[in-house]
Amino acid sequence: MPAMNAFYAQSGGVTAVINTSACGVIETARKHKSRIAKVYAGRNGIIGALTEDLIDTSRESAATISALKNMPGGAFGSARYKLKGIEENRAEYERLIEVFKAHNIGYFFYNGGNDSMDTAHKVSQISETLGFPVTTIGIPKTVDNDLPVTDNCPGFGSVAKYVAVSTREAAMDVMSMAETSTKVFILEVMGRHAGWIAAAGGLAGEKPADAPHIILFPEVPFRQQAFLDRVKDCVEQYGYCVIVVSEGAQYDDGRFLAEAGTRDAFGHAQLGGVAPVIAQMVRDNLGYKYHYAIADYLQRSARHIASAVDLKQAYAVGREAVKLALSGKTAVMPVITRVSDSPYRWKIEAAPLQKIANKEKMLPKSYIRKDGFGITAAGRRYLEPLIAGEDYPPFIKGLPKYPTLKNVRVKARLNNKFMV
Amino acid sequence: MPAMNAFYAQSGGVTAVINTSACGVIETARKHKSRIAKVYAGRNGIIGALTEDLIDTSRESAATISALKNMPGGAFGSARYKLKGIEENRAEYERLIEVFKAHNIGYFFYNGGNDSMDTAHKVSQISETLGFPVTTIGIPKTVDNDLPVTDNCPGFGSVAKYVAVSTREAAMDVMSMAETSTKVFILEVMGRHAGWIAAAGGLAGEKPADAPHIILFPEVPFRQQAFLDRVKDCVEQYGYCVIVVSEGAQYDDGRFLAEAGTRDAFGHAQLGGVAPVIAQMVRDNLGYKYHYAIADYLQRSARHIASAVDLKQAYAVGREAVKLALSGKTAVMPVITRVSDSPYRWKIEAAPLQKIANKEKMLPKSYIRKDGFGITAAGRRYLEPLIAGEDYPPFIKGLPKYPTLKNVRVKARLNNKFMV
Repeated sequence: MPAMNAFYAQSGGVTAVINTSACGVIETARKHKSRIAKVYAGRNGIIGALTEDLIDTSRESAATISALKNMPGGAFGSARYKLKGIEENRAEYERLIEVFKAHNIGYFFYNGGNDSMDTAHKVSQISETLGFPVTTIGIPKTVDNDLPVTDNCPGFGSVAKYVAVSTREAAMDVMSMAETSTKVFILEVMGRHAGWIAAAGGLAGEKPADAPHIILFPEVPFRQQAFLDRVKDCVEQYGYCVIVVSEGAQYDDGRFLAEAGTRDAFGHAQLGGVAPVIAQMVRDNLGYKYHYAIADYLQRSARHIASAVDLKQAYAVGREAVKLALSGKTAVMPVITRVSDSPYRWKIEAAPLQKIANKEKMLPKSYIRKDGFGITAAGRRYLEPLIAGEDYPPFIKGLPKYPTLKNVRVKARLNNKFMV
Repeated sequence: MPAMNAFYAQSGGVTAVINTSACGVIETARKHKSRIAKVYAGRNGIIGALTEDLIDTSRESAATISALKNMPGGAFGSARYKLKGIEENRAEYERLIEVFKAHNIGYFFYNGGNDSMDTAHKVSQISETLGFPVTTIGIPKTVDNDLPVTDNCPGFGSVAKYVAVSTREAAMDVMSMAETSTKVFILEVMGRHAGWIAAAGGLAGEKPADAPHIILFPEVPFRQQAFLDRVKDCVEQYGYCVIVVSEGAQYDDGRFLAEAGTRDAFGHAQLGGVAPVIAQMVRDNLGYKYHYAIADYLQRSARHIASAVDLKQAYAVGREAVKLALSGKTAVMPVITRVSDSPYRWKIEAAPLQKIANKEKMLPKSYIRKDGFGITAAGRRYLEPLIAGEDYPPFIKGLPKYPTLKNVRVKARLNNKFMV
């Protein structure tokens, strides 16, 4: 079989390590040039395929591709763009295949979360139907850690490390000032529906007196009085109280504590601002001086404090995606299987895309303490290995040095434009 | 002269490197045991002196004292507690001297900002008046970088590095997603009256297209229309816009964009929440999708990304404070004098406390770009050396390892209690 080209696209919210997966894909493909001629990347993800805006990664040096490992954000641009169902919008799928055909693309690597795995699955199906079968491999990526089957998702370990480190550091600050200043500190973290990121904050403390004293999970309906009682208790016992709150924290009727009212392209409610809601509650009911931080994008772009384990796994899923494709597999995603907790051992296996698509993995009840305000020993056993190890990017003039990509556009071969 | 004890206290908001100054004081004092018998630290700063709650640092091992260099927060507790004028509250000053006398304390090292230098100066004066002269040395500390005379303040370089690194990282994220998602990202940073920290965000970019595209300084009266025009311009030209806003950003009548209405122990307005104000302005007038982060305490406790230059200087001012005391100086503060920008060279000199007390150093106009939205080449020349170098703390299980201090209380020698 003559070599065909590959198409790689990043999808959804980026992470500190998604470019490491890109590096894994491209470096591995370059070792198999007899099978994969070139790797094209979509400019702004799948939109690049629809608009025939492909980036020729073969124009980048080996050094630049290797340096992708140090670069947060999405090196080729990512997109929040979900293809509709095939019945609703067959034109988009046909356009994808038209572009793939025009550029001799026989491999499609889609690096994203559960929405993207759904898209990948559909592309795989329609490519068969349209008589131009494309080997389609999903590559897991999400800070939310909510993909099923895989033990964890690349991207999560680094945001988990950022949140755990930041919680511990800020707690040292608050603890030392609490006598005359701030008594309650609130850190708002990401996690729409699943409390994985908030749970990671729990790694910052080891003893009951240690911060964080309270974690507010989306999985545990918020009860104001129990919360305020616990805050008061902490301030009286320890002198201060550190709270990690998930942006998805909600009442038992499913209302978010902080619903901003706007929705993103996937139709998800756009959240933000639960920290001030909690802060005001503390002030109005207990009168304590408070401060709050909203980590927002800082947490998912913090390559400078990425987890070494996360980086290794992000690379591995990229590399294994190519190997799966070359071994003839399609419509699968490499997943991380945990072999043991301590010492932490893991391996990569393959799971069918349809098992991943559109499913969310919630934080198991067994990881949440009975009082609902912290993590259990089981939760710690799960989380701890994922934040292990440091792998700092190179610095120059005090700042992380990132590669500058040429991102050269592949010459268009189609005459027709396609509007997204 | 027989050896006397020293008293060391931390004051005001802590920094990522204030414990490094403590380390400089204690390690240097330990080399001169014939002159300085023991270093006592105030539990919760000056309050520890008033309440006779002194910590005996001689009970800590050399390894623990050395590890203070890796520890954010205030190892002995800090306080927002300003002694009033001598006429208003002579009792507090007399109490300090009473405690110093009872514990044979002949040296007072006060590690803080301009309010604290005022207190130190007064203590120095009253100790003479009361016939128990105490050698009093200030040690500069403030993330705000607003102390006069000294070229920069220990604590600032690290928060500057945090803000510059975070701005650069978050910008990579936003840039890669802007096509279909967030177009405007706002990072709120500290800096009540002086825009030093916000200015540091400017180091993240080098070319006009680079983030941050807008910095909002307290020194530049906020003009809404000019701001919105610039946001629109950036989104149209670059596809996205990154804004670094100082918590102290204000209108030309001095009103803060986000005045919370509460005041701290020093009588300063407690700020926070300018980012959502800016975000709403962008949404209402331009309709762009936005995100914002509020760094709050994360920025000043981020020991994991502290500046190596800052750590060196924080240590040096602690060390030189002891040397100044031993050389017979009093009522002075070690200051950092810049010898050259590039290569960056600096030395420590001494300045009288009364030149430091209660004065604020604003960001010079020459560091602010003419349009008011960025830093100049001169500003960059000043700021760049201060964030240079990394000096990571040790990590264990994925988290920074900090020393555990015994913080043993010195046996009280006075019968009377003192209420603060």
